Amino acid sequence: MPAFAKRLDKVTGSAIRALFSLLGDPKIISFGGGNPAKESFPVDLVQKYTDELYKQDGAAILQYGATEGYKPYIKACLDALLKNKGLSGTSANLLALTGSMQGIDLICRTFLDPGDTILVEAPTFLGALQTFNLYQTNIIPVAMDNDGLIMSELEEAIIKHRPKLLYCIPTFQNPTGRTLTLERRKTVAELAAKYDVVVIEDDPYCELRYSGTPLPTIKSFDTTGNVVLLNSFSKTLSPGMRVGYAFGREDIIRKMTICKQSADTHTSNITQAIAAEFLTNNALAPHLESVIPMYSKKLNAMLNAMDKYFPTECTYTKPEGGLFVWGELPYGIRTLDLFKTAVEEYKVAFIPGEHFYPSPELGYNTFRLNFSSESIERIENGIMLLGELFKEAINKKTIDNK
Amino acid sequence: MPAFAKRLDKVTGSAIRALFSLLGDPKIISFGGGNPAKESFPVDLVQKYTDELYKQDGAAILQYGATEGYKPYIKACLDALLKNKGLSGTSANLLALTGSMQGIDLICRTFLDPGDTILVEAPTFLGALQTFNLYQTNIIPVAMDNDGLIMSELEEAIIKHRPKLLYCIPTFQNPTGRTLTLERRKTVAELAAKYDVVVIEDDPYCELRYSGTPLPTIKSFDTTGNVVLLNSFSKTLSPGMRVGYAFGREDIIRKMTICKQSADTHTSNITQAIAAEFLTNNALAPHLESVIPMYSKKLNAMLNAMDKYFPTECTYTKPEGGLFVWGELPYGIRTLDLFKTAVEEYKVAFIPGEHFYPSPELGYNTFRLNFSSESIERIENGIMLLGELFKEAINKKTIDNK
Repeated sequence: MPAFAKRLDKVTGSAIRALFSLLGDPKIISFGGGNPAKESFPVDLVQKYTDELYKQDGAAILQYGATEGYKPYIKACLDALLKNKGLSGTSANLLALTGSMQGIDLICRTFLDPGDTILVEAPTFLGALQTFNLYQTNIIPVAMDNDGLIMSELEEAIIKHRPKLLYCIPTFQNPTGRTLTLERRKTVAELAAKYDVVVIEDDPYCELRYSGTPLPTIKSFDTTGNVVLLNSFSKTLSPGMRVGYAFGREDIIRKMTICKQSADTHTSNITQAIAAEFLTNNALAPHLESVIPMYSKKLNAMLNAMDKYFPTECTYTKPEGGLFVWGELPYGIRTLDLFKTAVEEYKVAFIPGEHFYPSPELGYNTFRLNFSSESIERIENGIMLLGELFKEAINKKTIDNK
Repeated sequence: MPAFAKRLDKVTGSAIRALFSLLGDPKIISFGGGNPAKESFPVDLVQKYTDELYKQDGAAILQYGATEGYKPYIKACLDALLKNKGLSGTSANLLALTGSMQGIDLICRTFLDPGDTILVEAPTFLGALQTFNLYQTNIIPVAMDNDGLIMSELEEAIIKHRPKLLYCIPTFQNPTGRTLTLERRKTVAELAAKYDVVVIEDDPYCELRYSGTPLPTIKSFDTTGNVVLLNSFSKTLSPGMRVGYAFGREDIIRKMTICKQSADTHTSNITQAIAAEFLTNNALAPHLESVIPMYSKKLNAMLNAMDKYFPTECTYTKPEGGLFVWGELPYGIRTLDLFKTAVEEYKVAFIPGEHFYPSPELGYNTFRLNFSSESIERIENGIMLLGELFKEAINKKTIDNK
């Protein structure tokens, strides 16, 4: 067998996949996932629109489509989605994606040669980290506080490392749940223009807001075309459909389209058409209104239980939306070491935070919790159990240190 | 704006896309496409299965799925499709794809570093050529005759160029319609094993056989795991669904799966589930039986008209299936030079063959004709018009040479 490509040298598959092989048991309360709640999917409406679409012109939907996207989908995204965000453009600014993960890959393909540098939030989405590794990229983590990326750290990293790209999830970030403030969004756009960096603004959670005021995208402050906005319907309608889009400067979208020709020719017509139906029938907003109270209750249940059961030495974020809460234990405690005990003895799962850093040692004492897939009762119970485990670990460390 | 990646230096998008901007006029008879006939799509059955699937467990279909594929789809491909081809394996040997174009990309991602060498049939599928260029690959064309790749040329090229990969479309090849003989299929598998080359066996047209006897895959002669079989439902059910699969050795499939995580996370569940329904309900074979006579009549109409109207100096293939016929004009006539006259004056379109070669000069006098999208009457009329154009070009060349 010929040797595998060098790009695979540093990549071993999703790091948490191995952990999840421990999670067959339904008795285990899992905060480890990241899936939308099963009960959030608008099955009946999807079915209704599908029927109508096949009746209208089934053959057109089953035929090859354009790489750029299904025309009604492109139009609906521009008119019914982006306009509401204060973003205007033509079909040349939009590319349909097979999920926004594909957008990350296509921007990398468009810009990155081996050895090029990309800046990422520390911590960040691990699927993105894996992709950046596949492009043999130099990945530089930039520190965050509770308001997202720290601007002085970002500018310093740009000057020092001269990156081509910055990857940023500004709203209810995965894994931290943090949201970049309005002022910082402006600053990111300004720094990108000043130092000629392309920003991948990955914003899949922005519609899942349970409190506070919606913020404009970084893209809306972009005067030079350096920001490419990625979004998808995975968190608002259905991840199984695999539909998203990239919105950006025409020349970048054109190169991404060329790369997409080789990646999968085009995104499935039917799933694009269904998403378009939700937009043109004004059905997305009411659907979200029906889903958000359910998520909001689950998030509040988790945060209240954390206030009640977690040791005071444990700090955590208090997100206004999204699917994740992020926590930190005292220095010296490695959450990966606690994972096996959590699952096997306490029957509760979380994700050790180190997987979300390009260098695991940066976040060895952190963890991510997801609240979307469990009932309120199980959330409270699971957090109580985790609280016990964390207290035990802190006590043990205190004793060890004596 | 930072510089685009070097991989884009040689890539300008689908070469024939620009030609097609000339084709807005419905009066033009087009042999330029490659789409299945619109009337071939089983709209009613797709709709029926979709309804049933959403009724059974809509939420599971709308949720995230495994990168490897939707379980009933994997099982159906193994049990109802590959077993019939004499190929046995487990789920570890199969990866669901967002169309088989994605399979080509994932194999490249798995094996190719810049400067590595791939052998291709000359001519070959131009989408594959574009992908190989994106991987900064050294693309070496290997000569074909009417029985497909010439084995002595293949072995010589392997010895001389030490390729990692061979890309081969063995059945009703795009663009030539040629089929690799049984003996040569065995030999390809033997050469791959002997010289340790990975063969990408891309076989999307194999089910579209209108005469002659079905042949076993190259993969069925593979004793070392050097052959990866790609197939899709694009030519048998619907290209708009974007569903295919890769079948190969477990370690290769595992690396391709890692690459697919970064490419699009997974293929749409619903389109996989629909394809699975066709297989488990034994509905694919009857559907093909209903479609094949229609294609067969169109192919015969085209070949009969070519016999009648084309100049004797023009040679062409006589395929037993697939979607394409391939032709060659005398040396000295460049078909690209005839394209504009064909479209603007004769109102008939074809694809100049040079686009299907890594070096255009290898096939400047060739052309590809597709017969699936036009009526019999328009096929006969279009071939008559092309025959006039070709005769005129030959006459002009004869006069020029005097």
